[in-house]
Amino acid sequence: MIQKWSFSPYIDTEAVVLRIPAEDSPLPFFEHTDGKYICHMKDTTRVYGLGEAIRGINKRGWQYISFCSDDPVHTEEKTSLYGAHNFILVDSGRDDRFLAFFDYPAKITFDIGYSESDLITVNPEEDRLDLYIVTGGSLREIVREFRSLIGRAYLPPFFAFGYGQSRWGYVSEDDIKTVFLRHKEAGIPIDMVYLDIDYMEDFQDFTVSRERFPDLKNLSGYMRSNGVHLVPIIDAAVKVREGYSVYDEGKEKGYFCKDADGEDFLTAVWPGLSVLPDFLNADARRWFGEQYKTLTDMGIDGFWNDMNEPALFYSDKRLKEAFLKLKEFEGKNLGIFDFFSLRDVLGKLSNSIDDYRAFYHNTPSGKLRHDRVHNLYGYQMTRSASDALKSIRGGKRTLLFSRASYIGAHRYGGIWTGDNHAWWSHILQSMKQMPSLNMCGFLYSGSDIGGFGGNCTRDLLIRWLSFAVFTPLMRNHSAVGTRHQEAFAFGETEIFRHIITLRYRLIPYLYSEFMKAALTDDMYFRPLSFDYEDDPIAGEVEDQLMVGESLMIAPVYTQNAGGRVVYLPEEMTQVRMSGGEISTEELNKGHHYISVPLGDVVFFIKKGYAIPLCDPAENTQSIDYATLRLIGSSDRYTLYQDDGESLDVTLDSVKTIKKSNELSF
Amino acid sequence: MIQKWSFSPYIDTEAVVLRIPAEDSPLPFFEHTDGKYICHMKDTTRVYGLGEAIRGINKRGWQYISFCSDDPVHTEEKTSLYGAHNFILVDSGRDDRFLAFFDYPAKITFDIGYSESDLITVNPEEDRLDLYIVTGGSLREIVREFRSLIGRAYLPPFFAFGYGQSRWGYVSEDDIKTVFLRHKEAGIPIDMVYLDIDYMEDFQDFTVSRERFPDLKNLSGYMRSNGVHLVPIIDAAVKVREGYSVYDEGKEKGYFCKDADGEDFLTAVWPGLSVLPDFLNADARRWFGEQYKTLTDMGIDGFWNDMNEPALFYSDKRLKEAFLKLKEFEGKNLGIFDFFSLRDVLGKLSNSIDDYRAFYHNTPSGKLRHDRVHNLYGYQMTRSASDALKSIRGGKRTLLFSRASYIGAHRYGGIWTGDNHAWWSHILQSMKQMPSLNMCGFLYSGSDIGGFGGNCTRDLLIRWLSFAVFTPLMRNHSAVGTRHQEAFAFGETEIFRHIITLRYRLIPYLYSEFMKAALTDDMYFRPLSFDYEDDPIAGEVEDQLMVGESLMIAPVYTQNAGGRVVYLPEEMTQVRMSGGEISTEELNKGHHYISVPLGDVVFFIKKGYAIPLCDPAENTQSIDYATLRLIGSSDRYTLYQDDGESLDVTLDSVKTIKKSNELSF
Repeated sequence: MIQKWSFSPYIDTEAVVLRIPAEDSPLPFFEHTDGKYICHMKDTTRVYGLGEAIRGINKRGWQYISFCSDDPVHTEEKTSLYGAHNFILVDSGRDDRFLAFFDYPAKITFDIGYSESDLITVNPEEDRLDLYIVTGGSLREIVREFRSLIGRAYLPPFFAFGYGQSRWGYVSEDDIKTVFLRHKEAGIPIDMVYLDIDYMEDFQDFTVSRERFPDLKNLSGYMRSNGVHLVPIIDAAVKVREGYSVYDEGKEKGYFCKDADGEDFLTAVWPGLSVLPDFLNADARRWFGEQYKTLTDMGIDGFWNDMNEPALFYSDKRLKEAFLKLKEFEGKNLGIFDFFSLRDVLGKLSNSIDDYRAFYHNTPSGKLRHDRVHNLYGYQMTRSASDALKSIRGGKRTLLFSRASYIGAHRYGGIWTGDNHAWWSHILQSMKQMPSLNMCGFLYSGSDIGGFGGNCTRDLLIRWLSFAVFTPLMRNHSAVGTRHQEAFAFGETEIFRHIITLRYRLIPYLYSEFMKAALTDDMYFRPLSFDYEDDPIAGEVEDQLMVGESLMIAPVYTQNAGGRVVYLPEEMTQVRMSGGEISTEELNKGHHYISVPLGDVVFFIKKGYAIPLCDPAENTQSIDYATLRLIGSSDRYTLYQDDGESLDVTLDSVKTIKKSNELSF
Repeated sequence: MIQKWSFSPYIDTEAVVLRIPAEDSPLPFFEHTDGKYICHMKDTTRVYGLGEAIRGINKRGWQYISFCSDDPVHTEEKTSLYGAHNFILVDSGRDDRFLAFFDYPAKITFDIGYSESDLITVNPEEDRLDLYIVTGGSLREIVREFRSLIGRAYLPPFFAFGYGQSRWGYVSEDDIKTVFLRHKEAGIPIDMVYLDIDYMEDFQDFTVSRERFPDLKNLSGYMRSNGVHLVPIIDAAVKVREGYSVYDEGKEKGYFCKDADGEDFLTAVWPGLSVLPDFLNADARRWFGEQYKTLTDMGIDGFWNDMNEPALFYSDKRLKEAFLKLKEFEGKNLGIFDFFSLRDVLGKLSNSIDDYRAFYHNTPSGKLRHDRVHNLYGYQMTRSASDALKSIRGGKRTLLFSRASYIGAHRYGGIWTGDNHAWWSHILQSMKQMPSLNMCGFLYSGSDIGGFGGNCTRDLLIRWLSFAVFTPLMRNHSAVGTRHQEAFAFGETEIFRHIITLRYRLIPYLYSEFMKAALTDDMYFRPLSFDYEDDPIAGEVEDQLMVGESLMIAPVYTQNAGGRVVYLPEEMTQVRMSGGEISTEELNKGHHYISVPLGDVVFFIKKGYAIPLCDPAENTQSIDYATLRLIGSSDRYTLYQDDGESLDVTLDSVKTIKKSNELSF
């Protein structure tokens, strides 16, 4: 059951798609006082939710602040990442559980047993919001009902399930071709090469460097003839430069965010001085979306939207103030607290709340200061692209994902988990984010494999890939200045070829399970507790995941480990891929130490289930469904398959495939 | 066997105490070319060592740079922490293992399979060093032989095994008394309250704020009459202020480090403009040590030395240059790379290599530029204190530990692991540092319980304490501005009382094992692989430790976990302390899921071993050895006991205690 309580929201966030009348009855589960929402927990209560947020699958024991933030250091003490996913699923047992979605676009704090171990306190900056409460059924059923409220998940094209290679620092056509050719030479399948900010002319959106990418259309055609898609980045902000058509046109039409005086608000990101398209204004949103045509005309059919929290490196006004302030320190004998203040003058210029309070949007609910609608910005940028691309590309699906998001954005694109690090702990962090993102509809997700920041090692990349084999978005991405971490960057490529090839053999299963989850508002990744509600040990496992209906994974995420302990909540079939060979073994319920040498991928099929595997393929378009064979303890599997590009699809396209007698792997 | 190869070292670091002649034979194990030392590893080779360094017990798969660094963010990608412990124990199996100690005081890089998975490359900045190779016997025997080379570990007084409370931010006598009284009221044992930089007059070493600590001698006496010791911090740098006797005297005698022109080198730390005592000059070292008497005269018998990497917030000269540089950016339209450069002007002022190259020491080997002897600075500061205190305190032991260190410093004091964070991952990091520190003689060690930076939660503190019960140095410490994390700070104090009381019940065992390890050059904390060399699973376990001869611990270090999987390399007795009650259970070899509710402390006694437990005590001086009772599967335990303060002790003071028939817990 979904119920709504309405507390004078000042804008329709467009997060939900079901319009339900508000209740008059008292709000259940929470004490609602002093603008706060307070809920008591039992010792055994687990709290799921918050989508992309940091820390565990069980969010208990920390505070989380929904305020989309460009923060590239995802350590445990952080409270905000790029997304704002304001829901919690409070589980105190089968008869005492509910999901609460606080539909509120500004800063809101979720204190989940941080200040007091047994209290949840939800504290929005202004107490003006819609609160939805979902109750009844299993954890999975509650999530499904919530998902019916917020609408169907974005459907990516089939090729988006291939492997992608990205790096900030591929600066030319030659670099891009080399990336593709090195994969081809090594026999490593690949479907996408990403273009980071390097491809643009002076970081101007929808431009292409004439010098370094003289003919993008030609390059794109060459890549496509080899089965590879180019996927450029689009940043939110637009460079201030007269003569640059996007700037000129947006300025003329008044489509940029304004400061208090009604002038275009001047900030700075990659191109230096920039303005912010007002994505909360429907006309501006439509206009910005149309710009993508510049690139689709060159054969592009995938994009990633970035910097749309929005990230602000500095604002023109505050930089000037900073220089004045710096002068006050000059020539003085600086005691240490003076010195720290001095350092902060520049160190705290970026993403400042003072700047977020200094510009305005022209919304359907009137002029609103940015900080009051901050969390909608990235969402509406993704919508801008999605709406336009639907019409530009004639109803075909487009690969699209974003960094910032709000609930609702999941209908328009996927997200990736932003600028993570080449840390072993970030394999595990990513594993914990996936099911939580699935709960609020972000099914097409993944983390930067190998880590965006910092230097990756060969073993880290191998282990990360061995997990990412199962994430819908499978992209290796890294920052300029870091060690190269492509699958060919560590010498011998056999191990990488085997792992990525296995991904392609799994794609019929992964795609099928993804689409079934998307079309039934279900979860593709689930915590073990969602499948084994009555198993107290399963309830605590946060380093294993269910993937689709048939699989459980238990990746290795510690350095120098030759294996790990895995918990099986029931009898399962262990599947081991080792150097291209696949073997199976039946294992009993309980804990098992599983040896997983570097390069082996091990996963588990639930009792009574099977998965289809196809023959190896060099890219998604060469996957041959005729080669499908089943493994597992069932003799049938319900396969979803379609043309991989139509938007208008239903579950009618499922069919049952059966195990033949002549199986061999 | 210990052998030495000598490659023209430019200074005697005084790391070793055995003087061995250098070999003429070719260097074994390493190819020595181009100033580098290269060693091949097998797939199965494990590499132990590097003391305090970040990451695993097995150091394979990363690069580590020995260059003592004040870096408060201990994330996985870091290469340097506060200590420089230049040894590795390369283990390719019983017949193919060696320990190598690179006795070199400047920057040296250990690439342990980072650049190439199967290569170790050791790269000193100048190839001028002594290299010691230790071979023969078990891992533990090799470590013992290495330890005989570098000398006996520092012996702390008995009270140092009590619980200590610290915080940057206890600003007055009242604060300090309150800390003690709150523990006393809650029945939580305590032996030490630490004084961070707040106690000084304007951050001047060896001064006490007249306003906030009007009578430290009286305060110290009051605390001592309650069984509590005050432990003040001493920073390395000395404030520049005429009329401040330490500055005036040091300046007059020429005891501060000099710049290239022979003038005192001006840097800045807490007190603003400061100078650096030249701890590499024996006279200056002696003179600085004598200053501790100011505080011992007030009844102080414990110190922690800090900021002795040395940390430099800025130097006078470079700050002036920075202001000139800032002007170049003013009024320009800053493209983003300009902006990053601008931010770096101030952001990179601290701990700059340019500053470390700008001052000089007056050493027994002549004038040497700081960067060439950088890693000796903290070591010689600890020695300065230790040598002086030995004479000041008439042969009694003094509690002393330091942040920066080099091998050799372990003879003079312990170390703590510096400015960690309130991160769950830092419980585990600390667990991995302990055995590696033990290998090079730093037996008296521990991490800041609850984390120094960031906000601690109740459950984090409980789990951290449950591990720290076993670390010789058991100190709760946090930074100003963070959430309070004293054992009384989270409301209900029962759980904290139980855990810290257990510590006191264990002290007879912990102290006995510590002293036996110290007096026989053995390890108090050991990786499981040191006790179970032939067990391949034990060889990979990095989240359990052996503690002394009888115990194995397996702390819980993940949030919201109600237990964990523990690997028992052989049959053991599980001991569970729950709410003050102690129970035991025999468990078989293998993996076990052990339930560990918050507040329970669970550990394991090896088959055929026992440990003594005493009755609860409110501080170390009230521990009653007459109440000792044994638990475990042996009927005897060899106890070391002494007066807890004499420096001149031997293993003669061990006695065997036997299990009586009337045991009850």
